[in-house]
Amino acid sequence: MGGRTSFTLGRLAEALGASLDRDPGKTVSGVAPLETATADDISFVTDPRYRDAALASRAGAFLVADPIPNLPAPALRCSAPRHALIDLLSLFFPPPAVVPGIDSSAVVAKDATVDPTASVGTLAVIESGAVIGARVRVHPLVYIGAGTRVGDDSVLYPHVVLREGVTLGRRVIVHAGTVIGADGFGYAFDGTAHRKIPQVGGVIIEDDVEIGANVAIDRATLGDTIVRRGTKIDNLVQIGHNVEVGEAAILAGQVGIAGSSRVGAGAVLAGQVGVADHVTVGDGAMMAAQTGVHRDVAAGEKLMGTPARAMTQAKRIWIAEAHLPELARRLTVMERRVAELEARLGAARGGNGDA
Amino acid sequence: MGGRTSFTLGRLAEALGASLDRDPGKTVSGVAPLETATADDISFVTDPRYRDAALASRAGAFLVADPIPNLPAPALRCSAPRHALIDLLSLFFPPPAVVPGIDSSAVVAKDATVDPTASVGTLAVIESGAVIGARVRVHPLVYIGAGTRVGDDSVLYPHVVLREGVTLGRRVIVHAGTVIGADGFGYAFDGTAHRKIPQVGGVIIEDDVEIGANVAIDRATLGDTIVRRGTKIDNLVQIGHNVEVGEAAILAGQVGIAGSSRVGAGAVLAGQVGVADHVTVGDGAMMAAQTGVHRDVAAGEKLMGTPARAMTQAKRIWIAEAHLPELARRLTVMERRVAELEARLGAARGGNGDA
Amino acid sequence: MGGRTSFTLGRLAEALGASLDRDPGKTVSGVAPLETATADDISFVTDPRYRDAALASRAGAFLVADPIPNLPAPALRCSAPRHALIDLLSLFFPPPAVVPGIDSSAVVAKDATVDPTASVGTLAVIESGAVIGARVRVHPLVYIGAGTRVGDDSVLYPHVVLREGVTLGRRVIVHAGTVIGADGFGYAFDGTAHRKIPQVGGVIIEDDVEIGANVAIDRATLGDTIVRRGTKIDNLVQIGHNVEVGEAAILAGQVGIAGSSRVGAGAVLAGQVGVADHVTVGDGAMMAAQTGVHRDVAAGEKLMGTPARAMTQAKRIWIAEAHLPELARRLTVMERRVAELEARLGAARGGNGDA
Repeated sequence: MGGRTSFTLGRLAEALGASLDRDPGKTVSGVAPLETATADDISFVTDPRYRDAALASRAGAFLVADPIPNLPAPALRCSAPRHALIDLLSLFFPPPAVVPGIDSSAVVAKDATVDPTASVGTLAVIESGAVIGARVRVHPLVYIGAGTRVGDDSVLYPHVVLREGVTLGRRVIVHAGTVIGADGFGYAFDGTAHRKIPQVGGVIIEDDVEIGANVAIDRATLGDTIVRRGTKIDNLVQIGHNVEVGEAAILAGQVGIAGSSRVGAGAVLAGQVGVADHVTVGDGAMMAAQTGVHRDVAAGEKLMGTPARAMTQAKRIWIAEAHLPELARRLTVMERRVAELEARLGAARGGNGDA
Repeated sequence: MGGRTSFTLGRLAEALGASLDRDPGKTVSGVAPLETATADDISFVTDPRYRDAALASRAGAFLVADPIPNLPAPALRCSAPRHALIDLLSLFFPPPAVVPGIDSSAVVAKDATVDPTASVGTLAVIESGAVIGARVRVHPLVYIGAGTRVGDDSVLYPHVVLREGVTLGRRVIVHAGTVIGADGFGYAFDGTAHRKIPQVGGVIIEDDVEIGANVAIDRATLGDTIVRRGTKIDNLVQIGHNVEVGEAAILAGQVGIAGSSRVGAGAVLAGQVGVADHVTVGDGAMMAAQTGVHRDVAAGEKLMGTPARAMTQAKRIWIAEAHLPELARRLTVMERRVAELEARLGAARGGNGDA
Repeated sequence: MGGRTSFTLGRLAEALGASLDRDPGKTVSGVAPLETATADDISFVTDPRYRDAALASRAGAFLVADPIPNLPAPALRCSAPRHALIDLLSLFFPPPAVVPGIDSSAVVAKDATVDPTASVGTLAVIESGAVIGARVRVHPLVYIGAGTRVGDDSVLYPHVVLREGVTLGRRVIVHAGTVIGADGFGYAFDGTAHRKIPQVGGVIIEDDVEIGANVAIDRATLGDTIVRRGTKIDNLVQIGHNVEVGEAAILAGQVGIAGSSRVGAGAVLAGQVGVADHVTVGDGAMMAAQTGVHRDVAAGEKLMGTPARAMTQAKRIWIAEAHLPELARRLTVMERRVAELEARLGAARGGNGDA
């Protein structure tokens, strides 16, 4: 990937707002981790832990936060190296240009609206009344349902399915195989069978949301399932009908959120976390991996375990549990010793049988 | 979605078998939850908890179970409001009519049989010997393998994959991205490598089953993987080879059932439950979210935790665990106090050293 | 499935390297489990537990490990019956022959290279610079991105997505709906928003790997995500960016491995196991179902629980927990009895108030 462009260190320092300690005319033509970088690559030290690896690296230049004495190659120093790394990667690997136009093999309904600057790939299908914004990239084999709207600069990777009545904001990225707008999971049992509750709502995905591969986000029963601006969703996540996820939340891989629950802005759900239905998770709450959330969670709360508890308590319990079998044995010993004491004291004093 | 048809309250009362307290000539043109309903909408009170919300709602009419005094708009009263809600939604949002015929871009094998009343969408692929029943809707980009049969009135959403030798009953709904009939996960280790056991069985999905998005149901090694009539399966569920799921079971999101296990009729598995291989879960058993089932489960048993326990016991343990660190401290205090008692009693009586 | 070929028992004994106790001229035309086999089928007894079922079976012949007296039909005896079963299934159900050539509906870039012995199915899409090896089967509706390479004899089932810059070895099997090479989940928070870290690395899948349905394997940020030779991955598994999975590992259904972690050769991760990011799991380690791995794991370690512990310890704790509520009650009783003893001893001796 990427075109192996070359940059002088001086040019990079300027682009990244970094200070350079020497050799502004030296060129590098790639970015690589410390271990695999060659003399043609610039590498990066985003954490002091990697200092030794940096000293041993063959990289032709380094992006660093703090000065590292005796680095074997020139250093570009900047205050936020992770952000500088993003800029660096964007320089070396610019996103491919959008080639405007609709591929001749794509099947676009006559009354769909595709912005002339958008790109619609091979064998993509766009149904009646759909609206595709400026510079949108619809990759091959994508399906866009009737009346669905995709905002400017969004990217839909191959095999994405947007069912009818879905609304995507601007700069939304949806990775391959993801399904947005399947029916919510709602039934009423009539004594014999589960009768399907029609799922006639929609889905709203706001600006700057990124959604991983093979995710499923269901449409609402009525109203809308909503993912707010700037939230990032990893692969294989399940979001039920009528869920609302706040701004800039993080849902890691295989998280599941059941119907009608709310997840607050900035909340962080680690991998495989499950949230029960009709639950509210407050802003900025954090859940450790595999946590099972069965109740409302206050803003900023940190939880762990199934059913979830406060993280500090859960950790204390986890440590104490290691001694649980021994505790049971110690208690048995104690009971015997107390019984002996009672017997001896009873013998000494005449005793009473009621203990 | 939906055509914004208008109905008089009188007509709705008749259709739902409800009693109406006033204004039979008033019309409504939509259905909405209490909070968002306008004067043109009918709303619904399926649970007494929503009584206050109903009193504050702007809805033009209400569907209720029990009479609610002082409702601000006419009420249609019926004994089973959730079922009436289904009827109501079906009236306002009738499923789209099936447009019979095979889209010219679909690729259908010459010896496949497609009922003339079925609809085959854009770029769908139907392989040799497949049989598609009456009024079936095959959405765009669906793949139907050789010899696979789809029963009358079934719906396959975009990007569904039915591999060869799969049988779907009538009125089966399969949501987008779901794969039915991939090879089961079976190997025999020969000391060096995992040799693949050919997976040559099939899959049978009975009538009225609904399957969510991005689900995977594997074919059997030999024989069939079976999902029985009326069972409902949520998104991202995994069903291994040779599994049999009984009638009218509920498998919530991200449930996983390993190879050769059986899940009884009417069983309810909440989100992210895992069932080990070769396990039998009895009829009507219930598993709390994230339960890990490692052993056979009796009919009607309710389980929780990993490894699973009886739900009442698991809850008692979970509560007791909160006191576990304190318990350990109390036991240590007790040991000291008993040792002191022993010392004092020994001193008082001459003692013996064996405690 | 399969063509119902007939074989004499003599021919089968020869092909499987088995000894036959009688009737070499008898023919069978199918393979079936003990319970459903008819007189035309050969069945198999791969475990002594199935002896009674064998004695009751109607099968026309049996594949057995040890002699079973009074079997109702001839027995083929071989030392490794599970491997013989693989051979048997391969004889009766030979994999379909690859029909070389590119379907006229497939869309293949001019500068992609497709071996003339490969098969490219209906409506498959192969992008610029991709290289497809000998005898590869690209099923319908598969997407292969720019520059991606697929080694000889590999199979890509319908709706597989290989993004750009992915490398598959030989004899790799990828089941339907799986996505390889989606962007890794990497962001840097700038105080307001999560900025996307460009994901510009690749994915390498080595020879003889099999990957289930609806799996997601992300591309590396830089460098490569790697799955080594002979590893088997079940459905709905998530593998994050820069992960490396060693040779001949087993990842069961719905396992998730977060970014930059390593899983050793021969490791076995049961269903729904989660591995945190930047963790190393040693060779041959084993994780029970739903285990949450938060730390490095030594080679051969067996773990269970969340957070994970040694399996033997976890089981002991699980057993002890059953008595935890009772333990708390016993401790309370003990405290009362000790207090009484202290009171009595204090009364007897004048006591001191400090306990």
